[in-house]
Amino acid sequence: MEREEFLKVYRHSLAHILAKAVFEIFGTDTQIAIGPQIDDGMYYDFALPRPVTEEDYKTIEDKMTEILKRKEDWRREEISRNDALELFKDQKYKVEIIQDLPEDELLTIYRTGDDFVDLCRGPHVENSRDLLSVAFKVKGTSAAYWRGDSTKDTLTRIYVFAFPSKDELKAHLAWLKEAMERDHKKIGLQQDLFMFQDTAPGMPYWLPRGWTMYRQLISYSRELQDKHNYQEISCPLINNKKLWLISGHWAHYVNNMFLIPGLSEGTKADDEVEQDQSAGPDFDLESIDTMAAKPMNCPNAMMTYKRTVHSYKELPIRYSEIDVLHRKEKSGQMNGLFRVQEFRQDDDHTFVTEDQIESEIEDIMNLADEIYNTFGLTYKAEFSTRPDDFMGDIEVWNRAEASLKKILDKKYGEGNYEINEGDGAFYGPKIDLQIKDALGREWQCGTIQLDFQLPANFGLTYVDKDNSQKMPVVIHRAIFGSFERFIGIITEHFKGAFPFWMSPAQVGIVPIREEHNEFARDIENLLEYNGIRAEVDLSPKNMNDKIKNFRNLRDPYILVIGDKEVESKTVSVNIRGVKVQLHDIPVDTFVEVCKKMNAERTRDLITEM
Amino acid sequence: MEREEFLKVYRHSLAHILAKAVFEIFGTDTQIAIGPQIDDGMYYDFALPRPVTEEDYKTIEDKMTEILKRKEDWRREEISRNDALELFKDQKYKVEIIQDLPEDELLTIYRTGDDFVDLCRGPHVENSRDLLSVAFKVKGTSAAYWRGDSTKDTLTRIYVFAFPSKDELKAHLAWLKEAMERDHKKIGLQQDLFMFQDTAPGMPYWLPRGWTMYRQLISYSRELQDKHNYQEISCPLINNKKLWLISGHWAHYVNNMFLIPGLSEGTKADDEVEQDQSAGPDFDLESIDTMAAKPMNCPNAMMTYKRTVHSYKELPIRYSEIDVLHRKEKSGQMNGLFRVQEFRQDDDHTFVTEDQIESEIEDIMNLADEIYNTFGLTYKAEFSTRPDDFMGDIEVWNRAEASLKKILDKKYGEGNYEINEGDGAFYGPKIDLQIKDALGREWQCGTIQLDFQLPANFGLTYVDKDNSQKMPVVIHRAIFGSFERFIGIITEHFKGAFPFWMSPAQVGIVPIREEHNEFARDIENLLEYNGIRAEVDLSPKNMNDKIKNFRNLRDPYILVIGDKEVESKTVSVNIRGVKVQLHDIPVDTFVEVCKKMNAERTRDLITEM
Repeated sequence: MEREEFLKVYRHSLAHILAKAVFEIFGTDTQIAIGPQIDDGMYYDFALPRPVTEEDYKTIEDKMTEILKRKEDWRREEISRNDALELFKDQKYKVEIIQDLPEDELLTIYRTGDDFVDLCRGPHVENSRDLLSVAFKVKGTSAAYWRGDSTKDTLTRIYVFAFPSKDELKAHLAWLKEAMERDHKKIGLQQDLFMFQDTAPGMPYWLPRGWTMYRQLISYSRELQDKHNYQEISCPLINNKKLWLISGHWAHYVNNMFLIPGLSEGTKADDEVEQDQSAGPDFDLESIDTMAAKPMNCPNAMMTYKRTVHSYKELPIRYSEIDVLHRKEKSGQMNGLFRVQEFRQDDDHTFVTEDQIESEIEDIMNLADEIYNTFGLTYKAEFSTRPDDFMGDIEVWNRAEASLKKILDKKYGEGNYEINEGDGAFYGPKIDLQIKDALGREWQCGTIQLDFQLPANFGLTYVDKDNSQKMPVVIHRAIFGSFERFIGIITEHFKGAFPFWMSPAQVGIVPIREEHNEFARDIENLLEYNGIRAEVDLSPKNMNDKIKNFRNLRDPYILVIGDKEVESKTVSVNIRGVKVQLHDIPVDTFVEVCKKMNAERTRDLITEM
Repeated sequence: MEREEFLKVYRHSLAHILAKAVFEIFGTDTQIAIGPQIDDGMYYDFALPRPVTEEDYKTIEDKMTEILKRKEDWRREEISRNDALELFKDQKYKVEIIQDLPEDELLTIYRTGDDFVDLCRGPHVENSRDLLSVAFKVKGTSAAYWRGDSTKDTLTRIYVFAFPSKDELKAHLAWLKEAMERDHKKIGLQQDLFMFQDTAPGMPYWLPRGWTMYRQLISYSRELQDKHNYQEISCPLINNKKLWLISGHWAHYVNNMFLIPGLSEGTKADDEVEQDQSAGPDFDLESIDTMAAKPMNCPNAMMTYKRTVHSYKELPIRYSEIDVLHRKEKSGQMNGLFRVQEFRQDDDHTFVTEDQIESEIEDIMNLADEIYNTFGLTYKAEFSTRPDDFMGDIEVWNRAEASLKKILDKKYGEGNYEINEGDGAFYGPKIDLQIKDALGREWQCGTIQLDFQLPANFGLTYVDKDNSQKMPVVIHRAIFGSFERFIGIITEHFKGAFPFWMSPAQVGIVPIREEHNEFARDIENLLEYNGIRAEVDLSPKNMNDKIKNFRNLRDPYILVIGDKEVESKTVSVNIRGVKVQLHDIPVDTFVEVCKKMNAERTRDLITEM
């Protein structure tokens, strides 16, 4: 049996065993809903007479093992809809499911032993003994709406890990433990990088250390974009409905926008600002004064292009923007920095002639290479082509897709990138860049999208060689994507031990006793003068506590200053909080190596000293 | 007579002459309202049978001169309220004014000749001939509401410049012309620095050149703040009502905030995001989900401080922030960059013990010195003390004010700063810093405010030496103030010829013919490599057109590259668009001087070469 098939049959069968166990533990009042397979095992949804506590986990696991040891046969039966309704008449969720099935078809049920039956397509194991070699463990519980509908019953979902072998389960648990240790929310708290408050859900506070790091990313992005002839702009964060109507956001995105409704005609005084709004004015989204915080930079970039006449000689024009964006998310979907309501992107809108698409995309992919390489991240490209509901000229689409394919073939080699046929946006084909983190997880960060539609909506033109008015093609692109999300990803990727150049503080200095403070300060000043972020602990705490503190903050290098160092004007370097020290490094040598790491954004040259 | 008195009497008398002239030109249907003195002359408000056109200006001026030449006596009379109502019965606005005056007092009227009378306290000239030496000129007209009330009649306001002598009028007109030439809106357009669109009123688009300049100011501000041990943070731009209730903004500032109302209980679905908002949901400011774009950084800075326990040893803690702020303005009050609805400040909130107030204020004033000096701007300080409605402990106020006074005396010398008794905010005393621009206009940019109230609202504490919980004092401060407004001010101050270090492009390069392009590019690359913003014009345009373009953009230095320069590897420098050139400057020398100017933010060292 293929592994996929194996997992499906075994996990699904195990779900029946879970349901049977829960029946036996919680009694026949238990209502069972559905129990599908998931990535790391399966779950089953129940309506139970009492809540499940952590103490129940072991009981459930033991009961499941006990049931497996009964080595009962599994029997598949086909029965009529009416017989099924009769059989499951005490199980309201099963009845609902049956009622939604076609009237004239036979339904399949599976019996496990004589006392448990479930409505199920299968396939399943033949006898419970087949599951004895499988490893499983209750993962936990959560609340879940019946059919995912918040107006319906709230059920108890019991999750169970299930793997073909004990070793695989063990490996998975170890991976999970590692993922939890790398959790960016935990590291963010530990290093005092960012925080969230319920007065601004999903909108991070960037604390001094985190904001320092954030600014390093922005500087790096700007430095590269300068080299590639981007021009940075900054545009209004709030725009009125008129703009969103032109851009199409009002029609397609309004539910994700933070809206600032205008006042309705009736309640609008001549001088609206004087009005006491707290008394409850009558807001009206239809008002032309209605505004919204921008969820994307595109419309403002179009307006910026449109401010003047452009000649073909000026193209490509690349307007980059890192303005703050706002998008409404359901509260259940927010997740640390991974999904937020306020963020900045390394966003860009490039205006090109059709002929320039190929070379421009190549330049963007080179930029992506450089950026991801700097973080030691590998990535793969996904090419999404024309969907059925495409807009614009099919010939333009064809030529553009051919250009993109040519570049992708050249860069990655044919077959070394994914093609998602028909998965492009209606306004143009796109290339997504997926990076892979240290835990093997994939994250889409970069995106390069052609747009034949927005320049038409805004009536953008350039004057071509023959003096005719032509429409430019727009390339939307981001490499980091949202900086917030990227920081979340690399926090977990690096487990909080960031590359030297972007570390909030780069060097922690620990004078052993008070008489070492002066030299410690001198070193701090020298480092700061050379653009290296240093912090010194002049408190009366003992050396080990000082080191421990800098270690918790993940300062890449901790310098310990004692008599010997003061005398010989050297430093002892504790590398990334490990108890490995390099001794007798002349101060100037240390400074030079740090400068080099900052300038070149290379990692950990110190170990080479 | 004192000049002030002179201006008052003459301008006010001239207002009567204006009214008399308008009567004679526009006929007796003319209704006259009021005619006060203003800074550069006076105006009078009229209800006229027809609009005033520019052609009328000369007619009015000539008629006024003609009236003056009649050398009529002015007669003051005191009459009863009833007589006044009878006298002015055809003048509805005068009747309204009279009706508002106390019933039992005599009113004064002034007659100019036999046919013109106005209700007026005076004093006035004795005979119209006294005004013959005065210089005046119609400035223009505008619409004005009767009594400034938008529900009342719209009147025609006629403005007239009036100065004691022709020379003074001439000087004023020259000053006005200069001010118009320096208008930052005009220069912004000419240099392509920023723009406004009606889709985002009062919210500037920062175009590539303007944003480059803006970023230089931010870099400079950050560099200084780093040196003075500020820690930069970035906080949510949108916060919910809960925060604004704590901070007091909901009670005192809600009319100036862009509000994102929550949905009322009735219309709120369980899943609000799914709801089709465009169908017109019922917004409710009372909803706890109501949010607002932040008009100030203070509340978020308080939350940042509050995230953890602080020891007295950590203070002062300085949280600087340049987040984007939004404040609603009446549309009539917006004015280019001077008054906008979206802006960033070099904002800071410093948390100090009472003992630290003095040294901290001194440090801030040193910072202000350094910043204003860099722009060559002089400034004066204004100290505002405890108002009657002060909050907090009067002893704390007294000690704080004494500290501030001590520092002000030490820094500027007693009497060399203004004291506005009782003009402080209710939450603490403040020092405002007023800079003076090249046209002699004063602008309040810097502000340093103590706050005893906000830390109380947020319940902020620190642990003192004796382990007791104490409340820190908060210092709000900004030196640039709003960067938007500051850029507006210095654009006019420098007339668009910005200091080298902040100029959008610093060096424009003009190859004379195509064969000079290569060397021109080499120089561009060399400059860019050294962090100098250079732009080269490789187009086939002729030399003079290229120079003219860079001159219009106010590039500080324009390098002209011809045969001689290519051969000798030198540059010819055209200084700030003037037709003065320095020849035969070795390229490396030029680069070094530019680097020095960037590093030290000194001005125009090139002239010293």
